[in-house]
Amino acid sequence: MQALTTPADGGTRVRPAAVAEPEPRPDQAVVEVRAVSVNRGDLSLLGMLPPGSRLGFDVAGTVVHSAADGSGPPPGTRVAGVAERDGWSERVALSTTRLAPIPDGVEWTDAAALPVAGLTALYAMRHAGSLLGRRVLVTGASGGVGRIAVQLARAAGAEVAAWAGSAERTKGLAELGAADVSTYDAGPEATQPVHVLVDSVGGEVLRDAFQLVEPRGVVVCYGNTTRADLSLPFDWGHARPGVRIRYLHLFDEMPRRPVGNDLAMLLRLVADGALDPHVTLVGDWADPEPTLRGVGDRQVNGKAVLVL
Amino acid sequence: MQALTTPADGGTRVRPAAVAEPEPRPDQAVVEVRAVSVNRGDLSLLGMLPPGSRLGFDVAGTVVHSAADGSGPPPGTRVAGVAERDGWSERVALSTTRLAPIPDGVEWTDAAALPVAGLTALYAMRHAGSLLGRRVLVTGASGGVGRIAVQLARAAGAEVAAWAGSAERTKGLAELGAADVSTYDAGPEATQPVHVLVDSVGGEVLRDAFQLVEPRGVVVCYGNTTRADLSLPFDWGHARPGVRIRYLHLFDEMPRRPVGNDLAMLLRLVADGALDPHVTLVGDWADPEPTLRGVGDRQVNGKAVLVL
Repeated sequence: MQALTTPADGGTRVRPAAVAEPEPRPDQAVVEVRAVSVNRGDLSLLGMLPPGSRLGFDVAGTVVHSAADGSGPPPGTRVAGVAERDGWSERVALSTTRLAPIPDGVEWTDAAALPVAGLTALYAMRHAGSLLGRRVLVTGASGGVGRIAVQLARAAGAEVAAWAGSAERTKGLAELGAADVSTYDAGPEATQPVHVLVDSVGGEVLRDAFQLVEPRGVVVCYGNTTRADLSLPFDWGHARPGVRIRYLHLFDEMPRRPVGNDLAMLLRLVADGALDPHVTLVGDWADPEPTLRGVGDRQVNGKAVLVL
Repeated sequence: MQALTTPADGGTRVRPAAVAEPEPRPDQAVVEVRAVSVNRGDLSLLGMLPPGSRLGFDVAGTVVHSAADGSGPPPGTRVAGVAERDGWSERVALSTTRLAPIPDGVEWTDAAALPVAGLTALYAMRHAGSLLGRRVLVTGASGGVGRIAVQLARAAGAEVAAWAGSAERTKGLAELGAADVSTYDAGPEATQPVHVLVDSVGGEVLRDAFQLVEPRGVVVCYGNTTRADLSLPFDWGHARPGVRIRYLHLFDEMPRRPVGNDLAMLLRLVADGALDPHVTLVGDWADPEPTLRGVGDRQVNGKAVLVL
């Protein structure tokens, strides 16, 4: 079978190559892949892995072999799941604890876009605690995780403020449920204080956003796209006693989380029309480079997916 | 009766002045004060309060009137407790939920030194979670809270590293249970990685200490004596997924904590010889200025107490 593998130069010229068929563990189902999604985390691996390395975490497809231990859905079931960095393949073995059936009416592309971005946003909400009636600020709100975080915070009863890098990138955020929509250059003055801040930008944006966090507030960071130092004013804590800051990394969270059940819940929200993964770029799996470049250059205002 | 009040110039010339006798609420006992302690937080209030303001949180003395609601100990009981910024007085009304009996054999000075510093250190440990067999780094380890934190972490089964500002200030820390003792200028290289960091220094010391924090580690900050911005390297979170940073402020914690019971436990540790509040300066309540200056100038390697 074919799988996408990394090029010799560490760049985005990822190409299909012949690889061995998956050899599932007893707790894994084999899935015929129909769509995969591209996360920024995938791109950051390109330069770090040796040439010929497999890639890909987000997968949607059809079960062709059930897990030998009897867990998980039967053959023919449409599923989405989290692969072990080998998901950009024609077939892949997925742990049955990290997949969920795709409800009728949910497209392959939306299902493939959901696992990593949706679970990251969901676990950010879990760390933030009860959001009912609370104000939540999402920075990087135009990104794949950001747009889902806006919708999940709203669904959890929060009043949501959304910040993005430009007026162009804020498009659609109000429709997703953000009550306040601002660009970074508007600064903290444009937004009311919040109990929760969900940040993936870091640097000056995080410093500005942090000013709005109330005492006993919660800051969940899941990225640092500016790659700037964390810098907060000297009274960061004294001015907001009890404030908590946590760095969330999905692959650190998953071993302690009911990933399959959580993914099933997110897929139901999509089926119900309550969550839109906002797929804005759909590319060809056999020629992935334009899609990878689009994600790398931040030309994608939402999620990018490759279809087989 | 007399109470210490703030001077007109906002400085340390705190003096006894005539004030009204305490008017206890039904849940308050009236205590004849024998010793009080001086915290850095008291000093930072000096410049912020109007002239003639009352001061003081840490109190040890004898109950002279029990609480009207029947709670708390009978008259004649020796107690230590947390006052409502009016504790540097001949008599004070203390909430019975924020005081504890002093066990036989514990001196007034040690009891008075314990409430604010001991509870701050204890709640830092509570946020850090299970410490059994884990490594804990305490910065500002020579201070009043720091020395107690070293002892409590050790008592909780941790292996403790202690950092202080100079070789002079590290004195006694090994005897309190610190396995590693370093000065700030030794840098992070001198210390092994830790699961928990308890910091009150901020700035470069916090930045250096943070380098040692492992994935899923916990950082509890309860002060920022350098008054520097919080500054951490760009990969602060990515290099240690799941890391948590919390700012602990005792007066934010207390409403949610069993303060009296916690203080009773700390006093028992002192009675058992398992905790030494390390009182190194004992001054005269009627002439508090030298003691306040000593704390303000960091001349006190431990706790400072005033006796009546």
